[in-house]
Amino acid sequence: MPRSLASYDVIVVGAGIMGMASAYHIKLNNANKEVLVLDRFGAAGQGNTGRSNAMFRNTFSSVDNQTLADTSINFYLQAQNELKADIGLQQIGYLWLMSETQLHRSEPFLEGMVSNGIETRRYDLTELRQLLPGMVSSFESNGEAALMELPEVQAGIFGPTCGRLNPDKLIRFYAEKFVRMGGKVGFNTNVEKLLVGPSKQLGIDGEPFVWQDSEVKGVRVSGAMSGDLPAENVVLACGAWGNELLAPVGMDGHVKAKKRQLFSVSATGSPELEALLRSKGFNALGLLPLIILPKSGVHFKPVSEENGLWIACEDEVNRPFIDIPDHDLDQYKAEPGYFERGIKPVLAAYFPAFEKSKVRAMWAGLYSYNTLDYLPFAFKDNNLLVVGGDSGSGIMKGDSLGRIVDALYRGEEEAILHGDRPYRVSRIGFDRREVDREEWVI
Amino acid sequence: MPRSLASYDVIVVGAGIMGMASAYHIKLNNANKEVLVLDRFGAAGQGNTGRSNAMFRNTFSSVDNQTLADTSINFYLQAQNELKADIGLQQIGYLWLMSETQLHRSEPFLEGMVSNGIETRRYDLTELRQLLPGMVSSFESNGEAALMELPEVQAGIFGPTCGRLNPDKLIRFYAEKFVRMGGKVGFNTNVEKLLVGPSKQLGIDGEPFVWQDSEVKGVRVSGAMSGDLPAENVVLACGAWGNELLAPVGMDGHVKAKKRQLFSVSATGSPELEALLRSKGFNALGLLPLIILPKSGVHFKPVSEENGLWIACEDEVNRPFIDIPDHDLDQYKAEPGYFERGIKPVLAAYFPAFEKSKVRAMWAGLYSYNTLDYLPFAFKDNNLLVVGGDSGSGIMKGDSLGRIVDALYRGEEEAILHGDRPYRVSRIGFDRREVDREEWVI
Repeated sequence: MPRSLASYDVIVVGAGIMGMASAYHIKLNNANKEVLVLDRFGAAGQGNTGRSNAMFRNTFSSVDNQTLADTSINFYLQAQNELKADIGLQQIGYLWLMSETQLHRSEPFLEGMVSNGIETRRYDLTELRQLLPGMVSSFESNGEAALMELPEVQAGIFGPTCGRLNPDKLIRFYAEKFVRMGGKVGFNTNVEKLLVGPSKQLGIDGEPFVWQDSEVKGVRVSGAMSGDLPAENVVLACGAWGNELLAPVGMDGHVKAKKRQLFSVSATGSPELEALLRSKGFNALGLLPLIILPKSGVHFKPVSEENGLWIACEDEVNRPFIDIPDHDLDQYKAEPGYFERGIKPVLAAYFPAFEKSKVRAMWAGLYSYNTLDYLPFAFKDNNLLVVGGDSGSGIMKGDSLGRIVDALYRGEEEAILHGDRPYRVSRIGFDRREVDREEWVI
Repeated sequence: MPRSLASYDVIVVGAGIMGMASAYHIKLNNANKEVLVLDRFGAAGQGNTGRSNAMFRNTFSSVDNQTLADTSINFYLQAQNELKADIGLQQIGYLWLMSETQLHRSEPFLEGMVSNGIETRRYDLTELRQLLPGMVSSFESNGEAALMELPEVQAGIFGPTCGRLNPDKLIRFYAEKFVRMGGKVGFNTNVEKLLVGPSKQLGIDGEPFVWQDSEVKGVRVSGAMSGDLPAENVVLACGAWGNELLAPVGMDGHVKAKKRQLFSVSATGSPELEALLRSKGFNALGLLPLIILPKSGVHFKPVSEENGLWIACEDEVNRPFIDIPDHDLDQYKAEPGYFERGIKPVLAAYFPAFEKSKVRAMWAGLYSYNTLDYLPFAFKDNNLLVVGGDSGSGIMKGDSLGRIVDALYRGEEEAILHGDRPYRVSRIGFDRREVDREEWVI
């Protein structure tokens, strides 16, 4: 392929949810700008977006997280219900089964949510026993539960607005609209480096010197496209892989990556699991909500189209960071023993229906997060924009973050989130960051 | 050497200024505890502490930086003046030569310093011309200065409390007192990894599982000491090298490292440089203060015992982060061309006395900093303590940080800094961090 010499107004690196939502909103509000999205995979959403659990919630301790997620969810709801876009959205709800300590800890968060218009409801133990007949709520004389120090469930906190969607379909929704507006995509193309040069070229060998201002001039790519692609602005939306591009120019991507695993079990052949999957009384779909157990963040969700359940857990302590760039493919493999000896004993103690369940599929992705406060960020440094740090919630905040990137690109102080909600973009930057650390992490 | 089986109450990793000050204050306040300091070098302060410019200032925009530095400086002054410790401290002052824009920007910082008791004074251009006769203050018809966009000096801001000290001697001061109290040191010893295990050992193969709490059990070392050293508490005080120990357990060290270079020139044979070096009127020593130019943070200080000057510059933009661990020794070499083509043109435009100066020695060290807010941090996570992120100011805040580490170790909410000044330790942690980003960076 010949060396490309086309120049773009904006190059977006990464066609995951954040890159595609950013590209879509930039193109929507800047119709005459040439926008190119690059991705190493053959289509959009094939990286960590596609490997994720693709759940969404608006229930957070941080007001910013609440707002970013709630407006994005409303946009997705509108897309599915009014625009008739097929994004596989099921509003099944989230149900936290909480110990007494956890209930006490969550009280201030729940109060804060009320004042921001976020709906939750509480189920007491009697109600939970009726709605979830297979649930164990007493560990008396259960030696294994005592060994694992499993707390008993005291009550449930339910978020009815929360749910799941299909990440491939959501990405396609953005990508198709972006291309229809004239946006360009370059797949199977790897971004090797950011091209940096002096803001004012003097033509002296060795530029830029320490006394010169410098800026990003474009990106160097290889693969289906190859060569140097000049750009007026570059948007990095490639998760922890952004570190690989930022480190050589001495900028911090403010994000670290850990492996996160998903385990899929079938309900077929298990009347108990089938009954659990189709628990009535929580939502209009007659499906189980996402259930979060009171130990180690173990959680599971119904996948009705597979007649199965997907299981995962919070996995931060002792889990090493993955070096980026990384070529050790074992990093991306799920570990059978991790499920059998780590997750399953907890799961089966609360829901014995899982005792005989076998994993039929498992995979892993990168959980990229901002170790500082577990909130996403978006900032503009000269002509380089960076968005990320979603802490496993890129999908649920993707639309808001895309609008914020567009506002930063246009030099606006406020982004207008879905529902005409203004949001000061500096809140999630680093120069004048104003967010409170997220305390309600899964 | 046989496998060591001794157990310690506290193991401090790193015998730089922060490690030695921490070990000293812990031992001072916990006389019956066994404290061991480990370092890969053969003596204390041989890493980046010894390679640093070893300057100190109390002039910052951040109130926390002001307090941490001011109390440490007062402790060092007391050590030299009252305890008669030889730490090579010279209170030469810092003199910022500022452009109009910089003066305007620094006004709020200067006001803030007044209310925290930090002394500064302003020299107008007439005074500067008298005190620094070799200084160029007009670039009219200077084409090279125009090309480099050098701003003209409008005034000087002087910090009389600031100065320089000898890092080797300061470290020795702490190390000798620490050893005299019964503290142990293990030099030429490399810490290979943190040993992590379940808080409550169950004796089951594969521990710790995801449902178990875990903690640091000690460190694995090689070199002069070798084997596994158990410890009740571990303090990491090894700058960016801490990342190497923290990444495998999935904890963020919150610090990145870049190369910083120092260039030494002799004044011998140059009457102009000799006159500059011994500029009168700034301090009781009859020496030039540290001079900071209004472009690219180029700065130089007098080293009277060498009859020379050391020169450096702010070097953040485009300077890559250094991967830790790193075995590319070129990273630690100074670059002659960087001085000749980057720093010297700026230097000689303001002070032509440097035009003919030749570099007689140059070296580089790691400038480790917290990319978030450029302030140091100290936190305790279970039985692991981490201190760092000094942004090139570990020496000037070393004593305060040592006291904060000791307070964290003892579970105190407040450290008592030198001069009986209480300081809430959570201010520089990450869970409830309260500091404002430092805006006055060199």
